[in-house]
Amino acid sequence: MDSIKVFSPGSITNLSCGYDILGLCLNNQGDEIKVSKKSSQGVIIKSIQGYSLTKDIDKNVAGIAAQELLKNIDINFGFEIEINKGIRPGSGIGSSAASSAGTVFAINQLLESPFNHLDLIKFSMEGEKFVSDSYHADNVAPIILGGITLVRSLNKIDVIKLPTPKDLEVIIVRPDIEIKTSDSRKVVKKMIPIEKVVQQSANLSSFVSSLYLEDYDLMSKSVVDVIVEEDRKEMIPEFDNIKEISLKCGAIAVGISGSGPSIFSLSNDNNVSNKILDSIINHYNEQDIDSNGFISKINSNGIKILESR
Amino acid sequence: MDSIKVFSPGSITNLSCGYDILGLCLNNQGDEIKVSKKSSQGVIIKSIQGYSLTKDIDKNVAGIAAQELLKNIDINFGFEIEINKGIRPGSGIGSSAASSAGTVFAINQLLESPFNHLDLIKFSMEGEKFVSDSYHADNVAPIILGGITLVRSLNKIDVIKLPTPKDLEVIIVRPDIEIKTSDSRKVVKKMIPIEKVVQQSANLSSFVSSLYLEDYDLMSKSVVDVIVEEDRKEMIPEFDNIKEISLKCGAIAVGISGSGPSIFSLSNDNNVSNKILDSIINHYNEQDIDSNGFISKINSNGIKILESR
Repeated sequence: MDSIKVFSPGSITNLSCGYDILGLCLNNQGDEIKVSKKSSQGVIIKSIQGYSLTKDIDKNVAGIAAQELLKNIDINFGFEIEINKGIRPGSGIGSSAASSAGTVFAINQLLESPFNHLDLIKFSMEGEKFVSDSYHADNVAPIILGGITLVRSLNKIDVIKLPTPKDLEVIIVRPDIEIKTSDSRKVVKKMIPIEKVVQQSANLSSFVSSLYLEDYDLMSKSVVDVIVEEDRKEMIPEFDNIKEISLKCGAIAVGISGSGPSIFSLSNDNNVSNKILDSIINHYNEQDIDSNGFISKINSNGIKILESR
Repeated sequence: MDSIKVFSPGSITNLSCGYDILGLCLNNQGDEIKVSKKSSQGVIIKSIQGYSLTKDIDKNVAGIAAQELLKNIDINFGFEIEINKGIRPGSGIGSSAASSAGTVFAINQLLESPFNHLDLIKFSMEGEKFVSDSYHADNVAPIILGGITLVRSLNKIDVIKLPTPKDLEVIIVRPDIEIKTSDSRKVVKKMIPIEKVVQQSANLSSFVSSLYLEDYDLMSKSVVDVIVEEDRKEMIPEFDNIKEISLKCGAIAVGISGSGPSIFSLSNDNNVSNKILDSIINHYNEQDIDSNGFISKINSNGIKILESR
């Protein structure tokens, strides 16, 4: 195999109760990444379409993750990368993770899979570190493993793939502003009162339970954030109103997707999902705020191979 | 029914990763509590055997919980309580919870069950508040519901009963010192760094996953405490050595039971459990520290009715 094209999907992280831990793979938004072998060593980014981003391999997450992979294998050829960005950077649905994870996934395929999923997560995290100033795997893990994932440990990477209730879907709406992950991480408090720690971790573990039990009532009570949302929501226009509107339409839960500004809602009924999407977009229209949105099932498979030769 | 006698078991809380949230019901250590109707209103504690405790109903947890129950029902008779304490107070396996939960459970039976499990947990918590200076349900919940429980919320009481892996058992050893819950709670830090919050809640939710999956490897990695143990272990003689000994014998995990001084180990093999118990007791003997211990399966049923008439 000399060339491969993959679809590397978007992802939602945190899910309110699992800051830096939970992630969920989307199925209909993502980057298309083509990687081809080249005879000279090293990587180059040949083209980037969709959004304007640097092709400098030391400043683009795809280049950074690819170089990290290459540090771990001895080969006498290299790779060129073509990226068609389907995810807008700074939208809160894992734009950087899609590019970095998709790239190392593709390279690993071309090398006939010397690396396992956890290795690929580790390489991708170098890209995340570059854009956010901190190592985190909550976006790259669900893209690589598919479904809903729980990052148990970063020191020695350990990720659990959680069950996906079959009717669960997400509604994402992005108001037309950009938030840099690194800025959004700065508003997170460094010290948390023990009472909030107890409350948040009880909710996180209850959410995990709700996935095994397919218990949407329990999910609704558990997908709550008492640690980060209060500060981050200030960066997102109309957040409280949107939340109220979505819950009134029948959402299971509503929260900030990753570091925002996208807002996610959970639903287990496609009619409700459509109503939520329309109502939120309408509300933003009424406020003269541009926005766009979509509905997605949970993608259980993660990155998909589109073609190879 | 005019009189009822119940067995109200001990419990282990926290299980390292779930401070104030997780609890587990034991099957072979507990209080025997007899409650009889009396013609006059109110409650009295007629006798307490086993350990010396006050019979003042405003200072004994059984009296406090019983009075809380009676505030919520209009009846023209009362109850007398006889307690045979099987659990030593201040041992860290829920001595106060056994007395308060067993008492309100028994009274509820005599009243033909006007209250549900969550009501009984709420009444029992008044006893816990009295002895520990804080409301917590992690001991009373597993006694009343049985099995392993997760307290999702205290504001509006919500408890989830988690699955119990069939081979799981616990080994408890208590060095011969007493720690008051209220003292032990004082050493818990008020503010926790966000990195530790992430680590601890990832472990708690992974532990919950391990119960659904019966995955003892994941359990072993997850039953870890980065928030409380470091400070509390100073109150427990030889804690680090005991932990090392137990893990060497094959324990899945080792930690402080509740607020200590009892130390729990988890195992899924009775031969290993016996080896752990013997090795810990031997080590304490060598250090001239008195101790005692036992092995218990998880009690899925909670409080048991011994006789009624």
